[in-house]
Amino acid sequence: MLLINLFIYLGIIAAGVSGALAGIKKELDLFGVVCLCVATSLGGGIVRDLLIGKVPPAAFTDATLFLVSLGAGLLTWIFYQKIKRLNQLMIVSDAVGLGVFTAVGSSTAMSLYSGNSFLILSMGLITGIGGGVLRDIFSKEIPYVFKKEVYAIASIVGAASYIFIHGKVSETFAMYVCLFVTFAIRIIAVIFKVNFPVYREKTDMPVDQ
Amino acid sequence: MLLINLFIYLGIIAAGVSGALAGIKKELDLFGVVCLCVATSLGGGIVRDLLIGKVPPAAFTDATLFLVSLGAGLLTWIFYQKIKRLNQLMIVSDAVGLGVFTAVGSSTAMSLYSGNSFLILSMGLITGIGGGVLRDIFSKEIPYVFKKEVYAIASIVGAASYIFIHGKVSETFAMYVCLFVTFAIRIIAVIFKVNFPVYREKTDMPVDQ
Amino acid sequence: MLLINLFIYLGIIAAGVSGALAGIKKELDLFGVVCLCVATSLGGGIVRDLLIGKVPPAAFTDATLFLVSLGAGLLTWIFYQKIKRLNQLMIVSDAVGLGVFTAVGSSTAMSLYSGNSFLILSMGLITGIGGGVLRDIFSKEIPYVFKKEVYAIASIVGAASYIFIHGKVSETFAMYVCLFVTFAIRIIAVIFKVNFPVYREKTDMPVDQ
Repeated sequence: MLLINLFIYLGIIAAGVSGALAGIKKELDLFGVVCLCVATSLGGGIVRDLLIGKVPPAAFTDATLFLVSLGAGLLTWIFYQKIKRLNQLMIVSDAVGLGVFTAVGSSTAMSLYSGNSFLILSMGLITGIGGGVLRDIFSKEIPYVFKKEVYAIASIVGAASYIFIHGKVSETFAMYVCLFVTFAIRIIAVIFKVNFPVYREKTDMPVDQ
Repeated sequence: MLLINLFIYLGIIAAGVSGALAGIKKELDLFGVVCLCVATSLGGGIVRDLLIGKVPPAAFTDATLFLVSLGAGLLTWIFYQKIKRLNQLMIVSDAVGLGVFTAVGSSTAMSLYSGNSFLILSMGLITGIGGGVLRDIFSKEIPYVFKKEVYAIASIVGAASYIFIHGKVSETFAMYVCLFVTFAIRIIAVIFKVNFPVYREKTDMPVDQ
Repeated sequence: MLLINLFIYLGIIAAGVSGALAGIKKELDLFGVVCLCVATSLGGGIVRDLLIGKVPPAAFTDATLFLVSLGAGLLTWIFYQKIKRLNQLMIVSDAVGLGVFTAVGSSTAMSLYSGNSFLILSMGLITGIGGGVLRDIFSKEIPYVFKKEVYAIASIVGAASYIFIHGKVSETFAMYVCLFVTFAIRIIAVIFKVNFPVYREKTDMPVDQ
């Protein structure tokens, strides 16, 4: 399970950096930036653990997760001028994070409620996107995941692939499949600029008249 | 319990449509509209279940609730031009939803903590208004229920009537009383435009001088 | 434990008044003002209880807490013109509230998970600042605690002092130490206008060129 742990830390770092960048842009102080960083890194998992009754959530019992996120936040603060230009690296790391959080969320739910596919899918999705939703609410934005790009759908398909393959291969391998599927869909959507439809009232008005 | 289930689905649909309409107005994409729809339909019950320790929440163990809400969201997207004009139907359905959510919330809390009236009242209210509060937070609005009209008070009086009558009649009948009381107060408030007072600083200033 | 209870009520009142003032400024109706008041008073404790699995949260099982908060909200509404001028009294009461909430949060976590210092520290902080964060999210503001002044750090150092001293003195005395340390740091920060750094992009630009 060593490699999957490395991916988890990469996911925490990518999410944390995105939270810290949002905080700096909103002119939060250093404490606020770190809070937003940690909430983005660990918030999805905390909400998942509450929903499946795993209390206290892992984020409070394994301080390593917090420390990795804290480090990511502080380094973002220090190297802000450099990090904010690393757009492509950020997108790739973020896609890895989405994949690994989806895999961990699905796997955690499976370990407790293996018979309930809907719950497992939901927990994969909530773990995947929950941190970003919290980041946006704390920084007074409509959650990004509700507005743009194929982001959540990558997590949903990834979690579905995990459920499909679970039991047929080893647990770790199923998680890698989930991570890979989520990552691939997300990156393909970015490259080809695939977006979900948005209802445009104005363009529809002529039809109405 | 067949009829009460029909009311529950009507409540989920009414809440879901209000969430989907809010999402379309905020120019969310289809995924965001569906998310807002589901959060409005099921969010109050999820928060209630977390607070009373019923995990995973019913919304994750009974996928029918989700599917009804999903259907409401998709149909709102497709028939947006028509649905957004059905103001009166929406207000009546929403009042039914408020009533049935209050009844279900009170009854769920009663089944676990029958001795604690304050908790039962709170859970009735939170189930009744929680989804709308989540909808407004996700769409970057101050919760509507904090700003306008006799909405929450209908839920509080409805829950109180449920507590008062509980044990004297059948459980189902007590829920119908709660539903009816909540619905009636809400509709009367809409018809007569009864509002709670808002503190108007400017009109008070002359008094102060 | 009589005196600590008095402090708890003072904390609930101070937090409730700050919530009610925020609600009145945002032109919420009376119900909204009371909701914001109660959420600010009791929200931090509710989130803490959810995270440590203490359900239903104390705020729903001990109605006294709610009634004290409700009273504070109603009195703020009635005496708004006078209360909004009591700036210094509000700052002192708020600092007492931060201290006592941190002490209660740390102590509650200690009673369940005495071996996990990180969890205890987190619960002290979340109980201390959680209500204010909820108040700001409900009133569509970026949480104040993320933006200005040494507020959270006072709570963190206070919780750390509680953990350090716990077991060496009586529980009540350890809570008083936590309360005093938090209060003192907060008040000193206000008097000397100590702030956490904020990243100022513009002042850095010359360095970049």
